[in-house]
Amino acid sequence: MDAVKECLRNFPKEARELYLNDTVPYLDGPLSPLQFYRDWIGPNKPCIIHNAFSDWPALSKWNATYLREKVGSKVISVAVTPNGYADAVNGDRFVMPEERQMTFSSLLDIIEGKVKCSGVFYVQKQCSNLTEELPELTGDVQTHILWMSEALVHKDHYENLYCVITGQKEFILLPPTDRPFIPYELYQPATYRQKEDGNFEIVDEEDSTKVPWIPLDPLNPDYDRYPSYRLAKPLLCTVKAGEMLYLPSLWFHHVRQSHGCIAVNFWYDMEYDMKYNYFQLVESLTNAVGSL
Amino acid sequence: MDAVKECLRNFPKEARELYLNDTVPYLDGPLSPLQFYRDWIGPNKPCIIHNAFSDWPALSKWNATYLREKVGSKVISVAVTPNGYADAVNGDRFVMPEERQMTFSSLLDIIEGKVKCSGVFYVQKQCSNLTEELPELTGDVQTHILWMSEALVHKDHYENLYCVITGQKEFILLPPTDRPFIPYELYQPATYRQKEDGNFEIVDEEDSTKVPWIPLDPLNPDYDRYPSYRLAKPLLCTVKAGEMLYLPSLWFHHVRQSHGCIAVNFWYDMEYDMKYNYFQLVESLTNAVGSL
Repeated sequence: MDAVKECLRNFPKEARELYLNDTVPYLDGPLSPLQFYRDWIGPNKPCIIHNAFSDWPALSKWNATYLREKVGSKVISVAVTPNGYADAVNGDRFVMPEERQMTFSSLLDIIEGKVKCSGVFYVQKQCSNLTEELPELTGDVQTHILWMSEALVHKDHYENLYCVITGQKEFILLPPTDRPFIPYELYQPATYRQKEDGNFEIVDEEDSTKVPWIPLDPLNPDYDRYPSYRLAKPLLCTVKAGEMLYLPSLWFHHVRQSHGCIAVNFWYDMEYDMKYNYFQLVESLTNAVGSL
Repeated sequence: MDAVKECLRNFPKEARELYLNDTVPYLDGPLSPLQFYRDWIGPNKPCIIHNAFSDWPALSKWNATYLREKVGSKVISVAVTPNGYADAVNGDRFVMPEERQMTFSSLLDIIEGKVKCSGVFYVQKQCSNLTEELPELTGDVQTHILWMSEALVHKDHYENLYCVITGQKEFILLPPTDRPFIPYELYQPATYRQKEDGNFEIVDEEDSTKVPWIPLDPLNPDYDRYPSYRLAKPLLCTVKAGEMLYLPSLWFHHVRQSHGCIAVNFWYDMEYDMKYNYFQLVESLTNAVGSL
C-alpha cells in the first residue's frame, strides 16, 4: 500500500515536470481552432488570451448608466450570501446562496451603494440565459466564440471561456492531477436565508443526502489538518477587463472578484474521454488509499 | 489493497464504456488536420483510412520486376529470423533478429522462391531511411502526409501511420488502458545467428541487463498463467493494400503480414503530455499491486 501511495504522490509531480506550466501563460490573441485544440484543450491547460473580444461594444458600454437604461426594469435572479461565498462550506454545512428575484435597477442601487443592504449580491447567468433573459444586451457581445465552437464539436461537463468585461477576477487554479492532495468531506446541504433584521440564517435542505465538498480554504489552508495539501501547487492568476481565461474542464478553481465586476462566460460541455476516464481512476484511488 | 486492485480492474472497463470503440472504425478519406487531431490523435484511438494515398504511384508500380530494376543493386539491411518473430520472447530469452546485408535483388530472389533459404527475411526501414537509402523510390510515395504534419507540430515516442502498398497486415491492438491486464517479465537479451547448416542458434548479448517484455502470445494466450489477460479486450483488424492504419502512441500491437507485403510507415514522435503522465501512473500502479 505504501508503494501505491508513493505512485499517487509522484504522479502530480511528474505532471508538472512533463507538461504543466508554472504559471498561466498569456497569448497575444486568439489562435486557430487547430492550434487552440492541440495546444490548450487537448493538453487540458489554462491560458489567458488578450485581444480575443476587443471588438465587443460591451467593453466600453457596460456601466451602471447604460445597464439601467437598457435592462433596468428586467427582473433577474440574484444570489445573496452574508459573505460572498456561494456554494461553500460553512462549519458543518454546505451552504448555497439565497436566490432572490429583483429588478436589475434594484441590484444596481445596492451595488452602487444607493441602497444600504447587508449581504453580498451576485448575478449568475449561464450564456444561454444571457441571450434568453437579457436579449437587449446580446448585441454588445458575440454570442459564440468562432474558433472555440469549431474546435469543439462534440459536447458533453465544462470547458470554460471566461471573458472579463469590467473589473477583474482572481483565480486560484489546481490541475486535476493534484486530486490526490485535495481533501473532500461530506456535508449537509443548506441554504442561506436573510432574516428581517438583515442577518442570515442557515436552513437545512430537507431529505437531501450529504454532498462531498472540499473543506479547505485555498486562501488560508489548514496544513495541520490537511498536510498533503502542502504538495499541491496552486496557480494564481488575475484576469483583467478585456482578457479571456481558458479554464479547462476538471480543473479545481476558486474565484474572487472586484466590486461590480462583470464577466461573460462561455461554457462548452467537456468530452467524457481519456482525461475523464483517467481522472476517475485517480479519484477512486485517492478515495481507496485514504490520507497520503 | 483490494480496493486499489478493484480500481485498476474497473478503469479499463470504464475506458471502453466511455470512449473506446469495439472495433477499429473505417474512414472514407483523410480528414482535416483539426478533425484528425480532435477525433483520433487527441482521444488516442486507432482508425483505418481509405483513399489516403490513392495518388501514390507505388500502389501500382511496386512489384518485384519494378523494384529489381530500380533498386536491385542496392545493398540493404535485412532482419532474419527462423520463424518471423523479430524482437520476441523465445523460452527465457528476448531474441532480436540477425541483421544481414544483401542486395535488394538477392532479397527478391529469396522472397520469390528463386533461391531456397531457411528463415524468414524482412526489411525494416523507418521513413527517413527510405528517403535516404532508397531515394530512387521516393518519387512513388509522398514523403509526408500533409494533414498529419500540420496536426502534429510538436514532436517528441510514436504516432504511427501505416500505409500498406501490397499484400495485407493483420493487427492485434490493445489500448494503453488495458495495461493492468498485460503481463511483463524480465528476459536476457539475445540475437539469432544462422549457422552453416541453415539452422539458427541464439547468442546472448554480453554485458546487457535484462529487459522487460510481454511474455504472452496474443495469438494463443496462456490464460492459466496470465488469468487477468482474460479481462483485456484486443481489437483485431486487417489493413489491406491502399489502406492506412492510424496506430496511436502507447497502444500495444502485434503484427502479422502476408508473404511479400510492402508497407510504408510514417512515425511522429508523441507528446509527453497528460496521456503519457497518466499511462505512467497506471504502469507504476500495476507494478506496485502485482497480480490482479
